[in-house]
Amino acid sequence: MNIGIMGTGMVARAHAERLIETGHKVILGTRDPVQTLTRTEADFMGNPPFAVWQKLNPQARLGSFDKAASFGELLINATLGSGSLNALQLAGPENLAGKILVDVSNPLDFSGGSQPILFVSNTDSLGEQIQRFFPQAHVVKTLNTATAPIQVNPGLLADGDHHAFLCGNDVDAKFDVQRFLTDNYGWQHIADLGDISSARALEMMIPMWVRLFGAIGSPLFNFKVVGLKR
Amino acid sequence: MNIGIMGTGMVARAHAERLIETGHKVILGTRDPVQTLTRTEADFMGNPPFAVWQKLNPQARLGSFDKAASFGELLINATLGSGSLNALQLAGPENLAGKILVDVSNPLDFSGGSQPILFVSNTDSLGEQIQRFFPQAHVVKTLNTATAPIQVNPGLLADGDHHAFLCGNDVDAKFDVQRFLTDNYGWQHIADLGDISSARALEMMIPMWVRLFGAIGSPLFNFKVVGLKR
Repeated sequence: MNIGIMGTGMVARAHAERLIETGHKVILGTRDPVQTLTRTEADFMGNPPFAVWQKLNPQARLGSFDKAASFGELLINATLGSGSLNALQLAGPENLAGKILVDVSNPLDFSGGSQPILFVSNTDSLGEQIQRFFPQAHVVKTLNTATAPIQVNPGLLADGDHHAFLCGNDVDAKFDVQRFLTDNYGWQHIADLGDISSARALEMMIPMWVRLFGAIGSPLFNFKVVGLKR
Repeated sequence: MNIGIMGTGMVARAHAERLIETGHKVILGTRDPVQTLTRTEADFMGNPPFAVWQKLNPQARLGSFDKAASFGELLINATLGSGSLNALQLAGPENLAGKILVDVSNPLDFSGGSQPILFVSNTDSLGEQIQRFFPQAHVVKTLNTATAPIQVNPGLLADGDHHAFLCGNDVDAKFDVQRFLTDNYGWQHIADLGDISSARALEMMIPMWVRLFGAIGSPLFNFKVVGLKR
């Protein structure tokens, strides 16, 4: 399948690598491809410049948001939450219409210091905002509660015996995304939490994730819901 | 030990039953003991009237918030989150001073309809508010992410192979609460998430809990952090 991935950071790259391995064609979307390619320093998360990564992953193509979105039959939003709505606007609502948009972003605001807060929460969510701004896309929120390497390879941890959460308004889209996660990434346990308003719940897990990251000293953990059959 | 439990609902009763079983003396605190005892209808959660429950648990004494708090060497806040600050004010700051206050409450606002929201979150929490209002108490937030029967008996589920989370400013108090949870309730896995500001993370898990409750159709589930050693 042709897949458009919005973003070029560690989350976007993790998805791109895995999807190329499983036989898909991928374009990663960015605001300004020339600028993305000419960067020579690590980003604020310590990830190597895109050009360095791309040399190791030559099948991963780079394009504008618009290019990646028009190319993709299925789209993944792996941009920083603070830039997601703008990135998807640049991608073009017409390029999102009728397509599944897998939203793995988090509404993190790092401006306050060491502990990030959410710039939307409780009575609304980034997942809902994206669905409202792009009503013709089938937004499915998922995977935002795990670090990127686990998102695309849950088997890294406890033989995959832990949960992905998922929500969205379109039942068929959710079914397709569940199969997508299982077939490409190997997810065994996926809990469907209902319509897109459950994105509030998925995003409000992030403060717990951040505190656990601090307590454990590693991002390689995930949540398992004990008592849930699947 | 003498234990004062603020509240008379299902959470307070679950703790009282278990603590009496394990050999403690318990007073449950309420605003108006006479009114609590004369109620003859189930509460809004469907719990039987207090007097009916007390007949089955005659060792569980009832008193004013003030009476329960002065009696307790250790205190448990099991009131509704919306009434917690007021209940603790009635309990009397002097009766909280120097004591461990185990806070299991949640800042739930049910006024909006079917899906509750939090009346404080993200940049503050009920746990922090309680600690700020009663600076001489040693507030330890814990157990709010599980339903009452599991709070006091984690072995009900998967032989106890899941997590309690805990946070607070006083290291000795957290140590004592960990031992309290292990000795009285049988908790095997307790993750210390740091100071009381982590109460935000514990309380922001509740929307996920509510959605999972809807998806599973039972409150008998809990979170396990896979990848966390203890």
